[in-house]
Amino acid sequence: MSVDAKKLTNFTTKALQKLGMPEEDAQITARLLVATDLRGVDSHGVAHLNMFYARRIRLGIINLNPKPKIFSRTPSTATIDGDQGLGFVIGHQAMMEAIHRAEKTGAGFIAVRNSTHFGATACYAMMALEHDMIGIAMTNTVAGVVAPGSTKPAVGTNPLAVAVPAGKKPPFVLDMATSVVAGGKLEIARREGASIPEGWAIDKEGKPVTDPTKGVHGEGGLLPLGGTPTLGSYKGFGLGVLVDILCGVLSGSSASILQESTPETRGNASDHFFGALRIDSFLPVENFKKSMDEMIEAFEALPTLPGVKKIYVAGGYEAEIEKDRKANGIPLNSKVIQELQELAKELGIEYDL
Amino acid sequence: MSVDAKKLTNFTTKALQKLGMPEEDAQITARLLVATDLRGVDSHGVAHLNMFYARRIRLGIINLNPKPKIFSRTPSTATIDGDQGLGFVIGHQAMMEAIHRAEKTGAGFIAVRNSTHFGATACYAMMALEHDMIGIAMTNTVAGVVAPGSTKPAVGTNPLAVAVPAGKKPPFVLDMATSVVAGGKLEIARREGASIPEGWAIDKEGKPVTDPTKGVHGEGGLLPLGGTPTLGSYKGFGLGVLVDILCGVLSGSSASILQESTPETRGNASDHFFGALRIDSFLPVENFKKSMDEMIEAFEALPTLPGVKKIYVAGGYEAEIEKDRKANGIPLNSKVIQELQELAKELGIEYDL
Repeated sequence: MSVDAKKLTNFTTKALQKLGMPEEDAQITARLLVATDLRGVDSHGVAHLNMFYARRIRLGIINLNPKPKIFSRTPSTATIDGDQGLGFVIGHQAMMEAIHRAEKTGAGFIAVRNSTHFGATACYAMMALEHDMIGIAMTNTVAGVVAPGSTKPAVGTNPLAVAVPAGKKPPFVLDMATSVVAGGKLEIARREGASIPEGWAIDKEGKPVTDPTKGVHGEGGLLPLGGTPTLGSYKGFGLGVLVDILCGVLSGSSASILQESTPETRGNASDHFFGALRIDSFLPVENFKKSMDEMIEAFEALPTLPGVKKIYVAGGYEAEIEKDRKANGIPLNSKVIQELQELAKELGIEYDL
Repeated sequence: MSVDAKKLTNFTTKALQKLGMPEEDAQITARLLVATDLRGVDSHGVAHLNMFYARRIRLGIINLNPKPKIFSRTPSTATIDGDQGLGFVIGHQAMMEAIHRAEKTGAGFIAVRNSTHFGATACYAMMALEHDMIGIAMTNTVAGVVAPGSTKPAVGTNPLAVAVPAGKKPPFVLDMATSVVAGGKLEIARREGASIPEGWAIDKEGKPVTDPTKGVHGEGGLLPLGGTPTLGSYKGFGLGVLVDILCGVLSGSSASILQESTPETRGNASDHFFGALRIDSFLPVENFKKSMDEMIEAFEALPTLPGVKKIYVAGGYEAEIEKDRKANGIPLNSKVIQELQELAKELGIEYDL
């Protein structure tokens, strides 16, 4: 069943308001959640509304009326304490702060501590696009990825995203976990009772697992991008640690390996890092966009292997899905629909999708 | 045979001066080359002095008296045209510019076009360390890495480096090609007549190659980090494209896929991107360094798989080698010694190592 994006945004806003969130914050959150569904990233959109955010709001581990504090000593940088607000609200505010600073000085970088899960990392990087800036966003997550040579989770899947505007072509939007796969891929396999390919995760003896119920949460872990040391897993691990440094250490929080959580709070707390670079402070925006288009067109003109229809540059596939879903609606999984209907009933709002 | 780092630096400086380079530039270049050898990155140190730099200086494709132009519109950012100077000289100047800007505003970012090969990327990122800054450096390289789904080289190995100071522990220094391996690893295998592991490169039909003479320069290519789409090669490719954007597109040059070269100029021209972030503009440096140490110590305390002696954080292994080589000298390969001796003879300088 496909639902209209505008209706889904309104429904999500109403639900969040009923949960106690101020209207403007609810609107920001709903918009970012639905933007994620529109781009086909179904693991990080409204599928999480009940399970992640509503549940945690009820548990009282998300502050619905946060008073974020900003510590700033220089024109281009700042640290924000998110006062345990919802990650969407804190992340949106922090990324706007990075953009404002980039407007003035050419570059803006903000480290955020004491925030919570903020959805898809790309959302924040993409906020820079309409300002003709390059946007950068990352977040730490609960430790679930092993270090090369070990079997105990040491870093989070720690995603990083970079968004870059193009001209006629869709923007470049890289949004990647620094592990081989994000935890969501195992979640999906578990839900579907499917096995996972060798090379995604190992068990506590370091052997590859194909059962998605293993290889996570203390029973081994996900592998860093690269998979094995011979194929460069120290690079994926290094990138994961880098995200830990910029989000956790630089913000005054700490690295994921030092953060503790209970099953109830697991995956809630997080720290972020945002950046923006003003393109016209390097070269005229028109030249830049023309050059981006030329590059993307050269990639798309590459010869393809049999069975490969098209070479995509990061964000190109999501842009195609977005176009389709804006026209034809967002297809929601029956389980997600059921959850949203239950949430509507519980909150006493109309399910009008 | 091991040689003393100071003697090697003096020898390299003299050789570069004899080749026509001004003294200060020769000193900078020699210092960065030997610093790379000290850290055990033998592929990017003085082994390249004759083969890469002296040869290209004689070919006239490196400008020994460049007049770099700086274009700056904002306090935190700038673009530099390197006037085809040697990458070490241009890179050093550009990274200092990033550091100066970060001193004033908290962040400094410099895109560089029209430069040449600058050695190991880590060199420049590490320049930030003594200023208590986080240093970022990247460079594009000639296209040698295939896009997922294609067999034609589309991006360079495009390395990126980030250096972060710690307290008692060695600094975090990530320096990684965005391909599974850097081209240098195939060079070494070719020199030694060894085979390479499956997963590093493919031939023009897309089949894995273990013969290091294949899989490069038009006969297929290196694989992006991740290796296969199932294991995340679109992430390595995305990172490679990102480096192309920041170095090539943002500087006003172009992406590697659009840059042409002849066998003689191949690997010479390059564009760079540098960044610096002032740590004390986010939080007090002492707190940051203490937190870095705690993180690194937690990684080092992880349980290890049988046969694994120690878990290293990026830069930790190189720091151990550096300590040893500073005390006991730099072991040079007999082929490298022979090349340096020939260079000395040709330039009429004493080989006193």
